Amino acid sequence: MTTVETPVETPGTPAGGVSPRRGPQTVRLGIGQLRIDVDDPAGTWHAVEQTAARAAAEGVELLVLPELAACGYVFADHAEALARSEDLDGPTVAAYRELSRRHGLVLAAGFAERGEAGRVHNSALLVEDGELRAVYRKAHLWDAEKLYFTPGSAPAPVVDTRVGRLGLMICYDLEFPEFVRDVALRGAEVLLAPSNWPTEHSPGPGLVAETIKSQANAACNRIWMVVADRTGVERGQHWVGGSMVCDPLGAIVTEPVLGREGWLVADLDLARARDKTVTSRNHAFGDRRPELYGGILSP
Amino acid sequence: MTTVETPVETPGTPAGGVSPRRGPQTVRLGIGQLRIDVDDPAGTWHAVEQTAARAAAEGVELLVLPELAACGYVFADHAEALARSEDLDGPTVAAYRELSRRHGLVLAAGFAERGEAGRVHNSALLVEDGELRAVYRKAHLWDAEKLYFTPGSAPAPVVDTRVGRLGLMICYDLEFPEFVRDVALRGAEVLLAPSNWPTEHSPGPGLVAETIKSQANAACNRIWMVVADRTGVERGQHWVGGSMVCDPLGAIVTEPVLGREGWLVADLDLARARDKTVTSRNHAFGDRRPELYGGILSP
Repeated sequence: MTTVETPVETPGTPAGGVSPRRGPQTVRLGIGQLRIDVDDPAGTWHAVEQTAARAAAEGVELLVLPELAACGYVFADHAEALARSEDLDGPTVAAYRELSRRHGLVLAAGFAERGEAGRVHNSALLVEDGELRAVYRKAHLWDAEKLYFTPGSAPAPVVDTRVGRLGLMICYDLEFPEFVRDVALRGAEVLLAPSNWPTEHSPGPGLVAETIKSQANAACNRIWMVVADRTGVERGQHWVGGSMVCDPLGAIVTEPVLGREGWLVADLDLARARDKTVTSRNHAFGDRRPELYGGILSP
Repeated sequence: MTTVETPVETPGTPAGGVSPRRGPQTVRLGIGQLRIDVDDPAGTWHAVEQTAARAAAEGVELLVLPELAACGYVFADHAEALARSEDLDGPTVAAYRELSRRHGLVLAAGFAERGEAGRVHNSALLVEDGELRAVYRKAHLWDAEKLYFTPGSAPAPVVDTRVGRLGLMICYDLEFPEFVRDVALRGAEVLLAPSNWPTEHSPGPGLVAETIKSQANAACNRIWMVVADRTGVERGQHWVGGSMVCDPLGAIVTEPVLGREGWLVADLDLARARDKTVTSRNHAFGDRRPELYGGILSP
């Protein structure tokens, strides 16, 4: 696919911050917290379409949908995941592109990607006005995903779009702060994370363990952090529904919509994510001591 | 100083978790949230002594005191910091060793360390039953510290003690998750962080921005996270008083004592920090993809 952009090679600029870039300072974001069901493909896709239309009607420029939003998550086995997967020329990617074109959206969302030699990847794409800008294969697989999917072998993409420089990863990836740091150093202003958060790991009603990590990721890197979670019960699996937006100080700026379908809108001031100033003498990236971090590359 | 241990070289053991180690499973920790004042050295040190005695009386085995607890924080300039600094043979280190010996404590606490050629370091030591086990020089300096102190040039130490394998760093270091990851991969079960958190960076009453990062550090690495903060007003500078203990899932297990002197006690089950199991198929370290993290070593 010649339209797929490889990760933008933009080394961090520790001393002076991210280089100036044309584009809007404020972006209207929408998150569709969808009910997704591997046993109801039509209903699942209908929700995607309805959400894209609603986004356009409400002036949203950047829409983020959950992990595997196109096909569902709870596969029985590899064979079922393979059967539901498609390559980048398949109808799902085409349909995402068409939604993006029709509604004038930059759109991030998940799907099961058919790879080479019968492999299936838990992937997310980024489309802009009909054009496929990036595809990312989840690098850190969660639990039974290891039975169905082959992990990706590339860092997460960072892509310049008309709504800012966007990083893209998926769910459990966020629990690896070194992976997040990498996209932030490449200048991501907003990190989009299509997700499926299972309820078993929620520490209690109204609490989501993963939110802490998302907030810290935002705050340590001074980026906007966007999690598009899902809801519903799928083959007995319950889901949190913990979609959220964290500002570059780590504050959650959206009201949580736990345990049900939801629609979240937030205006993101990208300038806040370009400024890595912590104090007059501190800079979130410039204060790093990479010469002391080599130990974390040990296998 | 032949008694100072260099960082324990214990590569992470991704597949099988941290190697078995003899020692207690549960350790009683005490945190002295002290009023520290550079203009009241006698009162400041008196509080240190009182806290060590209290710790012993309450069965505490591991005592953590704030950053620069021996001398105060708000120096006027480098000359004053230099005047208050001492080398490892000076009376402050001797006094910390004696407190540790007398009360049977493993003790972590801060002091201004005189280095070579007129340099001063914002340092923390770890003493065990009178023996100096490690000295750490803060690698990430906060704000005006850059005017007085020379940053350290070594990774944070990880030391085997009778109360577990302990990591040691200072305050702003915690905002660099790659630095924390490094000590966790070397097997630290408890990360001790003598700190001084200024109020300007608190997002609101009862809230401390740094707690989120500490919780995430604990949760991502499945370690106990201990912050010994300070209180008081020092030359016009107000301090949060945000001492806390996070368990290996990132939950705060101590009641906060904000804005005043405080004493926190918690029992730490070290076995919880040795088990990096996330699910039956997930391991906090084994799931890492170090081959994808090389970008974060770029300067």
